Amino acid sequence: MTADAAYAELIQRTKEAAVLASCGAVLGWDERTYMPHDGSAFRGDQMALLARLTHEMSTDPKVGELLASIEGTSLVANPESPAAINVREIRRAYDRAVKLPKELVEELARVTTRAQQAWQEARSKNDFPAFRPWLEQIVQLKRREADAVGYKEHPYDALLDEYEPEATAAEVRKVLSALANELVPLIAGIGQSNRKPGREILERQYAVDAQQSFAKEAAEALGFNFRAGRLDVTTHPFCSGIGPGDCRITTRYNPRFFNEAFFGVLHETGHGIYDQGLVAEHFGTPLGTYCSLGIHESQSRLWENQVGRGRPFWEHFYARAQKAFPAALADVRLDDFYFAINEARPSLIRVEADEATYNLHIILRFELELSLLTGDLKPADLPGAWNERFTKMFGLTPPDDRQGCLQDIHWSMGGIGYFPTYTLGNLYAAQFMNAARNQLPDLEGDFSRGQFGRLKAWLNEKVHRPGRSYRSSELCRRVTGEGLQHGPLVGYLREKFGRLYDL
Amino acid sequence: MTADAAYAELIQRTKEAAVLASCGAVLGWDERTYMPHDGSAFRGDQMALLARLTHEMSTDPKVGELLASIEGTSLVANPESPAAINVREIRRAYDRAVKLPKELVEELARVTTRAQQAWQEARSKNDFPAFRPWLEQIVQLKRREADAVGYKEHPYDALLDEYEPEATAAEVRKVLSALANELVPLIAGIGQSNRKPGREILERQYAVDAQQSFAKEAAEALGFNFRAGRLDVTTHPFCSGIGPGDCRITTRYNPRFFNEAFFGVLHETGHGIYDQGLVAEHFGTPLGTYCSLGIHESQSRLWENQVGRGRPFWEHFYARAQKAFPAALADVRLDDFYFAINEARPSLIRVEADEATYNLHIILRFELELSLLTGDLKPADLPGAWNERFTKMFGLTPPDDRQGCLQDIHWSMGGIGYFPTYTLGNLYAAQFMNAARNQLPDLEGDFSRGQFGRLKAWLNEKVHRPGRSYRSSELCRRVTGEGLQHGPLVGYLREKFGRLYDL
Repeated sequence: MTADAAYAELIQRTKEAAVLASCGAVLGWDERTYMPHDGSAFRGDQMALLARLTHEMSTDPKVGELLASIEGTSLVANPESPAAINVREIRRAYDRAVKLPKELVEELARVTTRAQQAWQEARSKNDFPAFRPWLEQIVQLKRREADAVGYKEHPYDALLDEYEPEATAAEVRKVLSALANELVPLIAGIGQSNRKPGREILERQYAVDAQQSFAKEAAEALGFNFRAGRLDVTTHPFCSGIGPGDCRITTRYNPRFFNEAFFGVLHETGHGIYDQGLVAEHFGTPLGTYCSLGIHESQSRLWENQVGRGRPFWEHFYARAQKAFPAALADVRLDDFYFAINEARPSLIRVEADEATYNLHIILRFELELSLLTGDLKPADLPGAWNERFTKMFGLTPPDDRQGCLQDIHWSMGGIGYFPTYTLGNLYAAQFMNAARNQLPDLEGDFSRGQFGRLKAWLNEKVHRPGRSYRSSELCRRVTGEGLQHGPLVGYLREKFGRLYDL
Repeated sequence: MTADAAYAELIQRTKEAAVLASCGAVLGWDERTYMPHDGSAFRGDQMALLARLTHEMSTDPKVGELLASIEGTSLVANPESPAAINVREIRRAYDRAVKLPKELVEELARVTTRAQQAWQEARSKNDFPAFRPWLEQIVQLKRREADAVGYKEHPYDALLDEYEPEATAAEVRKVLSALANELVPLIAGIGQSNRKPGREILERQYAVDAQQSFAKEAAEALGFNFRAGRLDVTTHPFCSGIGPGDCRITTRYNPRFFNEAFFGVLHETGHGIYDQGLVAEHFGTPLGTYCSLGIHESQSRLWENQVGRGRPFWEHFYARAQKAFPAALADVRLDDFYFAINEARPSLIRVEADEATYNLHIILRFELELSLLTGDLKPADLPGAWNERFTKMFGLTPPDDRQGCLQDIHWSMGGIGYFPTYTLGNLYAAQFMNAARNQLPDLEGDFSRGQFGRLKAWLNEKVHRPGRSYRSSELCRRVTGEGLQHGPLVGYLREKFGRLYDL
């Protein structure tokens, strides 16, 4: 078999596994939007079968043989050629997948499914001891996963690698520490400021219908293509890029709080614009796949925060908001509204946090994950460790575990290593946005006229179309001239909150 | 391997293929309800992959080996035991599937996908010649399918067998001819009657929202379980029994015609109650599968017509209808409404036909299918043959092929042999309903009080729970004491329309 023929078959098999996985994405979307109540157990059977078949396809020894007969040939001699990129990344995923014993994969699937239910119950009853044995099992299993995959320095690296290829705990720790050092005084300054926004503005009556059409209008203006997508209601909002021509975002509406649905939609819109910006013909192969979770998150944060919580955006949209919600906003000035949606203050819940304090929530989780994985922190001691660090960082103590270490679903899903990608997203978003402002004159002028096409086209070209051609830090270097940095995010936050809080 | 172990593995494999097919059912439902416009091409890739993998599972030679090591053993000695029924039916499906050359299956899939598009265009342009070459190909392919499957008397038997196991063209012809002989004079009598209903009543303003909640209320009253199901909007309504706890019905609303959505919902509700009545633990095996399309259709027709178009049903529901549609119905008497929804008159379009004339539409198609398959009728001559027979049967001539031989999608889908199951459904529905009335005293009294639980429980026990344990005619004999008969349907129609039209 020639390398060309082997490559063609490799790509066909890779795409086929991706098509099968995408069937699971449709079922997953349906499960979280329209599936009838009693369908849940059977949906579990369907998802498990699709996951098993997809895994079998991806770990078929034939894939290894095909890779071996391509590697080292002239077809992949140029490391920047499409074939070389695809082969390198398929090899990476294949090696990781075959290193994991089937028994461990199934055990993880079984335990995390049940642990999520246990977590849900434990959270609602504020009963950490009920969740503790599950967390213990999960930490052990993830540690076994890390050992099976292998790592140079820290077992965490092996887990992080799944979400943020080749990033390491040491690198992440370095940038997060630098970030924390700058954020703590900034947040203290905000706390001491005499200026306070009127949060009550956002807690007036916002009719769900009007929220829906206003959010859809904004998503469409930013560039989400509704002929190739949808917006539906769910409990825990997400974006699902099912495949070419089919990307779905979701939200939930709170008739007494403006931010929840609106900024949620902008966030998912950012994910959606990324998915819609991937190259369709490469669907299912690394060239048509997102770069990393950090980069994916950079796109949601960029549109949600850098654009959607910016003043220029509201210079265009505020009159429309007043029209959509006359009872709530008729008597509110743009500046007051703008200040209210950008209120910064230490709070207990990560998903409700503002742009400035948000990253401290991530740093806390990242540090705890590291200690859990090495065994320096026992799961039984998690609530105490959480509350102690939280108090130190935020000057607030969680009154219960529900508002402390039980608030997030991630650990129950086995997602140790996932949290830092949120802050990586914030960091990359600030870096990308600085570069965009430099390269596209008067970009904020566009926003104030409701025009987002130049920014979207720039992101499509620079960030989306390369797919998984580069590691996230390398992509960042190519787009901005620099690797991952904490400076741009700090600069952006200082400038924005300095102005709002008169620091 | 013991027979017990082989049986356990056979059942596991059979269920697995069914679970995979059910993933396709979710994607199919999504395609016809919520899928974004641009997702259509990719959905084709997903569906093709699932179909191929399901076919591979069902025709795996291992299935044949397992069957062979069970057949003839004591495990299946009693032909009415669950194991014997499952093994017999899995063998039937396996033999049929492996007899079909893979190349023929793929050719049929390819041609029918394109033929459906060609049919859609040809119908909208009233251009039979554009569809003719596709019909020619389909007839040839279906003839090859019949030859590959094998048959004793008529190639049609091999096709009918897929929808109505072991039924034959000769049997169906016999009962349909007898039915036609009785229907023609009945319909003539109706045509000569001086009594005419006021159709205009049904063409007033019926707000879509009110239609939706009224139809849902009725579906729920009949016994459709909305915790395990949904009602959504689509273009061509259908019911999809995805799996245990998940069955979805669909409809379309016409704000200027009451019957379309309402009786459509009752029809799909009947299919849905059947699906919800199958035994969940047997899902995916013959014991948990519907008996035949004719029996499935008997359930939709029973609830739509025998119950939903009956006077007792409206004695309960009419006051509710007047409340839901006050502008349309406030001044209409129950008897006038009841007559209007039961108007019988020859018309051109099958799906709009009333209970009396409907079966003539089927008989016409059945006879033409037989001649197409033997080659006695050339596809090129179809329009002429259609119009000639139609005129003879209905006393009306289609003004164009759009309202003649191009009206139905079935042939473009390769569904030759499907049409008779609609009339088989009407026949079985009348037989089941007679038996139910005999066995459940004052059943119509239940209906007039809005109570349908006794009928539903009776159908659950007698018709639904047996799954595919028996052939349709045998099931009918066990439930009613008689095999397939035309008499009960004729008696029902004579009595109902004799009263309405004063014959």
